[in-house]
Amino acid sequence: MNDLEEITKALIQFRNERDWEQFHNPKDLSLAISIEAGELLEQFLWKDPAEANTEKIKEELADVFAFAFLLADKYDINIKEIILDKIRKNAEKYPIDKAKGTAKKYNEL
Amino acid sequence: MNDLEEITKALIQFRNERDWEQFHNPKDLSLAISIEAGELLEQFLWKDPAEANTEKIKEELADVFAFAFLLADKYDINIKEIILDKIRKNAEKYPIDKAKGTAKKYNEL
Amino acid sequence: MNDLEEITKALIQFRNERDWEQFHNPKDLSLAISIEAGELLEQFLWKDPAEANTEKIKEELADVFAFAFLLADKYDINIKEIILDKIRKNAEKYPIDKAKGTAKKYNEL
Amino acid sequence: MNDLEEITKALIQFRNERDWEQFHNPKDLSLAISIEAGELLEQFLWKDPAEANTEKIKEELADVFAFAFLLADKYDINIKEIILDKIRKNAEKYPIDKAKGTAKKYNEL
Repeated sequence: MNDLEEITKALIQFRNERDWEQFHNPKDLSLAISIEAGELLEQFLWKDPAEANTEKIKEELADVFAFAFLLADKYDINIKEIILDKIRKNAEKYPIDKAKGTAKKYNEL
Repeated sequence: MNDLEEITKALIQFRNERDWEQFHNPKDLSLAISIEAGELLEQFLWKDPAEANTEKIKEELADVFAFAFLLADKYDINIKEIILDKIRKNAEKYPIDKAKGTAKKYNEL
Repeated sequence: MNDLEEITKALIQFRNERDWEQFHNPKDLSLAISIEAGELLEQFLWKDPAEANTEKIKEELADVFAFAFLLADKYDINIKEIILDKIRKNAEKYPIDKAKGTAKKYNEL
Repeated sequence: MNDLEEITKALIQFRNERDWEQFHNPKDLSLAISIEAGELLEQFLWKDPAEANTEKIKEELADVFAFAFLLADKYDINIKEIILDKIRKNAEKYPIDKAKGTAKKYNEL
C-alpha cells in the first residue's frame, strides 16, 4: 500500500468508527476544505510569513489535506493522477518562455 | 520514491522551470489554497451535490492539493505524518462513544 | 450622517483607539474577510440551513461586514455606489428573459 | 429610506425579477460570500497591496457585500445593529490598554 492509500485508509477508518459518512457529502466536504483553508489563512493574518506559528500551520494544513483526501475518496479520484494532469494542463496555459519570472495569470500573459 | 515525494517533485519542477519560487512565500501559498478552495466550493453553489460537475471538481481539487503540497514543502512538512498526527489528536477530541453518529463540535459533545 | 457613514465611523474609531491601522493594509483586510466568511460558513457545516444557530450567524456576518467596510474605507469606496454599479453590470450579464428561474452562470446561459 | 434599506431593496428587486429566491437559502448564500471573498483575495495573490487592481477590487468587494446583504435580509437582520453590537463585544474582548498597538488575538493578550 502506498502513502496516498495509507492516508486515505486511516481517514476512512477514523470516519467510519464515528459513523460520520452520513454527514460527508461532497458539498459539505468542500465547505470543510474552505473553512480549514480559512483557519490556515488566519495563521498569517496581520503578519509577515516569518512570524507565523509553524506548529499551528501544520495542524491547519493537516485539516485541509484530510478533507481533501476524503473528498477525493468520495469520487474515487486518484490524487496523483489529477495533480499530474493539472500540471500538464498548466504547462500549456503557462509556457515556460512566456511565464518565466512573472506572476501574471495565463489570460494576461 | 513514494507517491507523495513524486507529486512534490513534479510540482517543484514545474515551479522552478518558471522561476516562480520568488512568489511562493507561505502566506501567499495559503492565500492560493483558500482561493482554490473557493473555486472548488463554487462547483456546488446553488446545487445539490449530485448536480455538480465531476470534471471541474477534479480540476479545482487538484489545485487545492497542488498549493497544499507546495506549502508543505516550504516547511519541510511530512504530509503523511501531520495527517496521522491530526487523526490521533482528533481521536482524543472526538472519542468514539461520545462522537458516534453526531456532527457536533468537540466543545459541544 | 447616513447609516453607511455611521457604521464606518464607529469601526474606524474602534480601530484607531487601538492603533490598529498599521495592520490594516488592503491585502490583510481581504484575508480577514475570507477568514470571517469561513467562520460564517462553519455555522452551516454538516447541517441543513434550518439547523444553524442564528445568533452565531449574526456575529460572523457582522465580522464579514466589519472588514468589508474597513476595506472599502481604505480605497475611499462608496459602498452603495459599487453595489448599485454591480447590479447594473449583472443585469447585462443576466438578462431577465434568459436568467429567469435558472442558477446557471452567465457564460452557460 | 436609508442607504442600507435602499441597497437591500435594489438587490431583492434584481433577485426577484429573475426568480432566484428559490436558490438563495442561507447556506448557499454563505457559500456565495465565501466564494466572492476568495475572488477578492485573488486580487492580492503574489502581490504587494499597492500592485492590486482597484477596479477589480471594487467589483469583487461589491459581490461580497451583495451576498452579505441578501443573507442579512433572509434573517431580517438589521445590519447596523449587528455591527455596532459586535463593536461593543470586541471592545470587551480587546480593552484599549491591552490591545493597543498589538495584532494579538484576545486569547493571547
